[in-house]
Amino acid sequence: MSSTLSALAELRAEVEQFYATHFHLLDSGAAEEWALTFTEDGAFHPPSGADPVRGRAALTAGVGAGYQRLLEAGEVHRHWHGMVAVEAAGDGTVRAKCYALILATPVGGTARVHLTCVCEDVLVRDGEKLLVAERRVTRDDLP
Amino acid sequence: MSSTLSALAELRAEVEQFYATHFHLLDSGAAEEWALTFTEDGAFHPPSGADPVRGRAALTAGVGAGYQRLLEAGEVHRHWHGMVAVEAAGDGTVRAKCYALILATPVGGTARVHLTCVCEDVLVRDGEKLLVAERRVTRDDLP
Amino acid sequence: MSSTLSALAELRAEVEQFYATHFHLLDSGAAEEWALTFTEDGAFHPPSGADPVRGRAALTAGVGAGYQRLLEAGEVHRHWHGMVAVEAAGDGTVRAKCYALILATPVGGTARVHLTCVCEDVLVRDGEKLLVAERRVTRDDLP
Repeated sequence: MSSTLSALAELRAEVEQFYATHFHLLDSGAAEEWALTFTEDGAFHPPSGADPVRGRAALTAGVGAGYQRLLEAGEVHRHWHGMVAVEAAGDGTVRAKCYALILATPVGGTARVHLTCVCEDVLVRDGEKLLVAERRVTRDDLP
Repeated sequence: MSSTLSALAELRAEVEQFYATHFHLLDSGAAEEWALTFTEDGAFHPPSGADPVRGRAALTAGVGAGYQRLLEAGEVHRHWHGMVAVEAAGDGTVRAKCYALILATPVGGTARVHLTCVCEDVLVRDGEKLLVAERRVTRDDLP
Repeated sequence: MSSTLSALAELRAEVEQFYATHFHLLDSGAAEEWALTFTEDGAFHPPSGADPVRGRAALTAGVGAGYQRLLEAGEVHRHWHGMVAVEAAGDGTVRAKCYALILATPVGGTARVHLTCVCEDVLVRDGEKLLVAERRVTRDDLP
């Protein structure tokens, strides 16, 4: 069909594949590999409104500590992105807005919905890869 | 690869991008903009079996009132479509069958699964856009 | 764009469309049609660690019995695959790793998260179709 639709199909595929790998890393505790899916000075703006976590070392530390707490609590978290809308911005970046769903399962227990969020990413290209430059997350349970 | 797969990739991308935007509008209370993603005489056949809601004015009114009730109840709803199967029908329309998941989060409270449904859409093209001509939803909790 | 991205878009579209149809069949109790989406000697390695269910007759029987139990219990299950990462392996197979979410709704009752899992599939081509050759599922609630 049109080159516009072909470009949309390719961009969506790239972003969806990126998110899949990104969250497989996060949820399996591969904190350092996960942080490598951000740019070197990539920033996560947390839903709490606290200062952004910036840079791979800080991202690795934050996510590693969170995973350690889950291990100690005997709980598995799974992050899902859905309803992903992508846009190739004029400046060469890719903007993605989506819903995030975090599911929690205690080992030996019953799965539950932990949180629903909205996530807005600025993604940039590094050679053939996408990387997160900026991530802003809002939690639906916070006013 | 084959032109069939290329067409499938483009059609799926178009429908998935459409659903993402469509539900971002719905869940943020942009009732009128949401209704513009239906055809002028587009119809929503509700799971209750009641008469269809037909036309953008009626769709706007129904969804606007629903959003107002959620605001008053202090609750955020998120609509997810998943397991989307698309088909280009011979008559130029696009048929989509998917699962719908509605997640609900009270402000200050705990997220939960509100409903799971099956959604069947007839989508039509208006220039470069897709629009919903007919939507049929069944709720899994209703016999 | 590049032929790599074009191939990724096509492969992802094929796999996502396959999963949609595959689970519409499963969740509607079309056990025999569902089993036909496996190869003739396709195997499902269950999360329990029990012996794999191998071949279409065994798959049909297992899934048919499960659906019968749900009917008797008055409960609807919906299987969602998400965060799907696909890879065209060198041997002509397609590897897919994804999250699986099973939602359960009692008729007249309230929907809930039943299980979250990780699913790893080896998919093979049969003419224009994909088929599951091997499926390995792990449940997040089992140690």
